[in-house]
Amino acid sequence: MTPQRFDDIRALMADLPQPDAAAEAAAADRDAQLTKPPGSLGKLENIARWLAGWQGHPPRAKDLHILVFAGNHGVTAQGISAFPSDVTVQMVANFEAGGAAINQLAKLAGAAMSVTPLELDAPTGDFATGPAMDETATCRAFAAGMAAVTDGDLVIPGDMGIGNTTVSAALAAALLGGTGADWAGPGTGLDAKGVNHKALVIDRALALHAAKLGDPLETLACLGGRELAAIAGAILAARLKRIPVILDGYVASAAAAVLKRQNPAALDHCLLGHLSAEPAHRLLAEKLGLEPLLDLGMRLGEGSGAAVAALIVQAAVATHTGMATFAEAGVSEKSG
Amino acid sequence: MTPQRFDDIRALMADLPQPDAAAEAAAADRDAQLTKPPGSLGKLENIARWLAGWQGHPPRAKDLHILVFAGNHGVTAQGISAFPSDVTVQMVANFEAGGAAINQLAKLAGAAMSVTPLELDAPTGDFATGPAMDETATCRAFAAGMAAVTDGDLVIPGDMGIGNTTVSAALAAALLGGTGADWAGPGTGLDAKGVNHKALVIDRALALHAAKLGDPLETLACLGGRELAAIAGAILAARLKRIPVILDGYVASAAAAVLKRQNPAALDHCLLGHLSAEPAHRLLAEKLGLEPLLDLGMRLGEGSGAAVAALIVQAAVATHTGMATFAEAGVSEKSG
Repeated sequence: MTPQRFDDIRALMADLPQPDAAAEAAAADRDAQLTKPPGSLGKLENIARWLAGWQGHPPRAKDLHILVFAGNHGVTAQGISAFPSDVTVQMVANFEAGGAAINQLAKLAGAAMSVTPLELDAPTGDFATGPAMDETATCRAFAAGMAAVTDGDLVIPGDMGIGNTTVSAALAAALLGGTGADWAGPGTGLDAKGVNHKALVIDRALALHAAKLGDPLETLACLGGRELAAIAGAILAARLKRIPVILDGYVASAAAAVLKRQNPAALDHCLLGHLSAEPAHRLLAEKLGLEPLLDLGMRLGEGSGAAVAALIVQAAVATHTGMATFAEAGVSEKSG
Repeated sequence: MTPQRFDDIRALMADLPQPDAAAEAAAADRDAQLTKPPGSLGKLENIARWLAGWQGHPPRAKDLHILVFAGNHGVTAQGISAFPSDVTVQMVANFEAGGAAINQLAKLAGAAMSVTPLELDAPTGDFATGPAMDETATCRAFAAGMAAVTDGDLVIPGDMGIGNTTVSAALAAALLGGTGADWAGPGTGLDAKGVNHKALVIDRALALHAAKLGDPLETLACLGGRELAAIAGAILAARLKRIPVILDGYVASAAAAVLKRQNPAALDHCLLGHLSAEPAHRLLAEKLGLEPLLDLGMRLGEGSGAAVAALIVQAAVATHTGMATFAEAGVSEKSG
């Protein structure tokens, strides 16, 4: 179903699918028989079990779908980004031509990649002076995110949108508490003065929209943006299809926070791919109860950190699936 | 040349090749033009530059050589492993049949993999009661490691050898200071009592061999083992050919420590792939001045952690090589 009102989204989120306990147990059982000391593959073992549970069969990580959503933000009028907002549409062209970081990472992982530009010629409203979106526009972007999820072994939602770390910081503050200073960071490259200004713009918006910020979907509408709504939609659609999701950095995590506030179990099918170098991502990950798989100092968005993490997930599946058991290989098990 | 005496190794290590500064600068220059905010790929950017410097051309990570060395250890007579020492030869058969973790990871990374069993039917001496090897045997194993390095974009030395975390802990203590308790851990799965016993066995050996432990190569001979000597040889051979190396976990790092003590610059061409779950690996990495790329709770050896890290290195090369520049893509650069 395509949500047209917030109540449609709330209804979809009221009763979410759970993992398949039998498939998870079967993966754990196989893991215990593989030719290695128990536990010696660390997180790779956990990942294989987690995938099996959500997929409902032995874990797979071959058919990866990277879904990049792009949006433009009225709040760039406040001078909160190191790059001009023209870059959003230019980068969409770069994605389509295969020249961005995420294209190379998708190719390396053997992933399919789609790019969804979201009304780039009509930026959302400047949230410093009014709402970013109304309910209809928010649902339209959310539905675009849902529609981008078709099938596959794993979904990786990514973002592009000049100004969107400001949107993400505002959303995080509104959804999880704190002020602009707690959540604003350099984004694509602001200096300290720029970060302070960004924090003040956020604080102003938190005061302006205070009456609406008790509800996560209203908060998403007030602060935006379209690509964040789409990422939230993609995460939800994946859950409804029981497809596991790898979350990227600060922006994807802020989008995920909307769902988490709506239903505390909404991110159980998500793995946080990496810790972004955007300073507040650590706090955001903690608040979401997600432990990042990688910490490589990346802060690019586009789904790039999650796409690198997908390689680790593929390693987890490769070992789980391909290794011989003690019995098959004639290897002695642990003594005593 | 094939070293036959320690002086041959010392001579090889006296004057080590340095990275190509021009190739490194060319990589940095290209990186600055790629369609991303400067620095936003974090460690991937550093890796691309580091590879370029050692390889002397734009970075490559396609032709990976995983070299697994297996040895047996007399010190298993002291009851310091959770697995029987028969497992070493059984696992070599498993490697050859393609059933081990490292086989799956090699396949995923598109790596070539070789396995070198080192006189498995003649375990080294029990270092708790005498020297593990003499100079000739040590050089023979070291030379086998050197010979395994042919060419390629990257070398990943791995280890197999029941008892070899005890050997590694003893080597680390002898080379870097501290007692058995500082360096002994559960290995493949000892309980607390077993770890204490392992530490005491190491302390006894440190006292027994004290007169020889001032020299890193004599230390390697006293404590063993063959696969550690071979890994040290492979790291050195790669350096002489200017092939970058990804180090695996505790055992590979202990082997690398021999070289580091012989020449403080000996590991400049090495990236530490991951932090092992073997507790003392953190201290060992610090003492070697190496920062682990991954921290996935792995503790398997075989080169497995380094092989997973190789996927990250491939991501670094893929983005560095494949991305469009700002000029090529018509994307605006950072303002101001």
